[in-house]
Amino acid sequence: MPDIAGATPYVARAGYKEWDRCDLSYVRFDAGTTVAGVTTQNLCCSAEVDLCRAHLRHGLARALVVNAGNSNAFTGQRGKDAVDVIVGQVAAHLSCDVTEIFVSSTGVIGVPLPIDKAQAGLEAAFGAAPCSWADITHGIGTTDTFAKGATASAMVDGRKVQIVGIIKGSGMIAPDMATMLGYIFTDAAVDAAFLQQLLSAANKSSFSCITVDSDTSTSDTVLAFATGQAGNMQLTSYDDAGADAFAAALSDVCRQLAHLVVRDGEGAQKFIEIQVTGAASNDSARRVGLAIANSPLVKTAIAGEDANWGRVVMAVGKAGEPANRDTLSIRFGSTLVARNGLAVADYDEAPVARHLKQKEIEIGVDLGLGSGHATVWTCDLTHGYISINADYRS
Amino acid sequence: MPDIAGATPYVARAGYKEWDRCDLSYVRFDAGTTVAGVTTQNLCCSAEVDLCRAHLRHGLARALVVNAGNSNAFTGQRGKDAVDVIVGQVAAHLSCDVTEIFVSSTGVIGVPLPIDKAQAGLEAAFGAAPCSWADITHGIGTTDTFAKGATASAMVDGRKVQIVGIIKGSGMIAPDMATMLGYIFTDAAVDAAFLQQLLSAANKSSFSCITVDSDTSTSDTVLAFATGQAGNMQLTSYDDAGADAFAAALSDVCRQLAHLVVRDGEGAQKFIEIQVTGAASNDSARRVGLAIANSPLVKTAIAGEDANWGRVVMAVGKAGEPANRDTLSIRFGSTLVARNGLAVADYDEAPVARHLKQKEIEIGVDLGLGSGHATVWTCDLTHGYISINADYRS
Repeated sequence: MPDIAGATPYVARAGYKEWDRCDLSYVRFDAGTTVAGVTTQNLCCSAEVDLCRAHLRHGLARALVVNAGNSNAFTGQRGKDAVDVIVGQVAAHLSCDVTEIFVSSTGVIGVPLPIDKAQAGLEAAFGAAPCSWADITHGIGTTDTFAKGATASAMVDGRKVQIVGIIKGSGMIAPDMATMLGYIFTDAAVDAAFLQQLLSAANKSSFSCITVDSDTSTSDTVLAFATGQAGNMQLTSYDDAGADAFAAALSDVCRQLAHLVVRDGEGAQKFIEIQVTGAASNDSARRVGLAIANSPLVKTAIAGEDANWGRVVMAVGKAGEPANRDTLSIRFGSTLVARNGLAVADYDEAPVARHLKQKEIEIGVDLGLGSGHATVWTCDLTHGYISINADYRS
Repeated sequence: MPDIAGATPYVARAGYKEWDRCDLSYVRFDAGTTVAGVTTQNLCCSAEVDLCRAHLRHGLARALVVNAGNSNAFTGQRGKDAVDVIVGQVAAHLSCDVTEIFVSSTGVIGVPLPIDKAQAGLEAAFGAAPCSWADITHGIGTTDTFAKGATASAMVDGRKVQIVGIIKGSGMIAPDMATMLGYIFTDAAVDAAFLQQLLSAANKSSFSCITVDSDTSTSDTVLAFATGQAGNMQLTSYDDAGADAFAAALSDVCRQLAHLVVRDGEGAQKFIEIQVTGAASNDSARRVGLAIANSPLVKTAIAGEDANWGRVVMAVGKAGEPANRDTLSIRFGSTLVARNGLAVADYDEAPVARHLKQKEIEIGVDLGLGSGHATVWTCDLTHGYISINADYRS
């Protein structure tokens, strides 16, 4: 992943858990960096999420701190105090306003973040040499089985701008209009309000269209930082030259990151794309897609490589969205298996069986009602998910 | 289970699957039997569900037919034709109106019910000797691991009336205002409209408060038949003598049946009761309870006997119902583990660990907002669920 001028990453060992790895990540931004973000809709969100929301209103960033191994969620005043200490320590170090500091934490819920470990970890990060983005992707992970990053570039105002995105997440994944812990860095100059508009739009067809297990985290956060050091005239609206190219590159990075989370879904062995068409609206199509993607019976059928499309019918019918049994069509891969409310007579099972043996599964559902459409992504439900989550100790 | 005067059960072998068992159940009612029912909210419901809804409007029943091994759902006109043949054959045999015949089918979705097997099975049932209710509970089962029935009695108008209930269901269980395949028989005399009122009320705190896997079946149906042969004056409203006693007995049978389904949830090793209090309304409490009950992370934590109450916090927050992180309290068994938004300092883990080793788990959640309350029931999520559903062939 390329360097981003104006964004300098560091990692350190705070020791939030009994492990031998860096678990505190710190990214320092040059003055003038703008920021946008989207956060979880979970009503029991962490103090970190509250802080990010408040600081996003100012639109400027000088630093990002990410703690791994403890989410600090549901820890009351002690949790809020810990975040305040971190923000104060970094703002003093950088001689900047506290509203320019952003903090996330991820890990077990309900255990206050140890303030002394956070303070010592930050001091170590301040004194460390800069690291790579790859180091940061490892530093923010928890149950992730691989580090996740994505890049894109765009020509804006005659300058090539770079975008780097990193993300963590594997379980408790159902962002629903919010996201995972994900961070996007660009050297493009982008007005904070416009960056927010672009990120919110990209989020809608990326992070908000994935699910691993239907469980929405209390800490989900995606932040995008634009250092402005590529030298382009600052983007302020879609009318600016290069805005469309930048928006496409940003959406590309968001989609790549979202897919990486699904591919690393707890216990996942298959990546499933669900394309819903013919719905009453795009929002309705997305909700039908997520009902299919969240169905344990659909996910176990795919794990078993079983073309049990009746379970897809069931999931469509339970979604609570407009649907008509007698106009519904379903395909696995490119093979239509049900059309207008009943099985396609004597459809060829061979290509369906071959498709289901692949790692990448495609399910198409046409509701036959309107022009609404959406694509959502999920993984299968396997013994691996049970092993990971019935053993994971709090 | 006691005999119900006026209701005579029979079983026969239709051979809907390659198995050596009775799979067609037939219950004949004497003239004058009233009927009420509740059915699935799944929009892709079966032709049988459509038929029951239409016939329930007439309020009278002479026969019930239940086919096991094939749900006949999503089979278009051929599925509807199969049901019409069954209804016609039974109505001709009994010389009654077709609207007095009720049919359910359960099993794989998307395969038309073989009409010839249904016809031959019915003829066998017509010629068979009456069987026991226990025979019927086996006859209607599919993936059930045990037969499920419940009984209650009540004094109405100086007469002892009997209620017998039978049910099948183990997976694809999230009735949400509807039910499983369940049948209730009573010799009480109850007006059809009042019976419907009583059944709908009982359903609301029984079948609608259970979930195994959040997946709502296309065939869910519960029907209640009242033969009237106990000799009581027909119940027509709550003002009638004995109506309260009968309502309590009916609710008792419904709750027993609902609990049996959860206890036989696919792969279940533990029975979990979730009590939600302090909600904005009773409906809101029920939805919060179901969000907890449907959370894969909560269900796997219980399977692992892990007091990971942070996952309960997460599930409350994602429910989309009024909730406030800082007034939330959680208990496992009788031990309060979190109060007003943070962990109870130094709570005694010993009784919590002991409680989680039991087969019957109780989780209490107080939202601290209002007086709304509800109790829902579910089971844990284990390797058994994955084994059953990743191998179950369509």
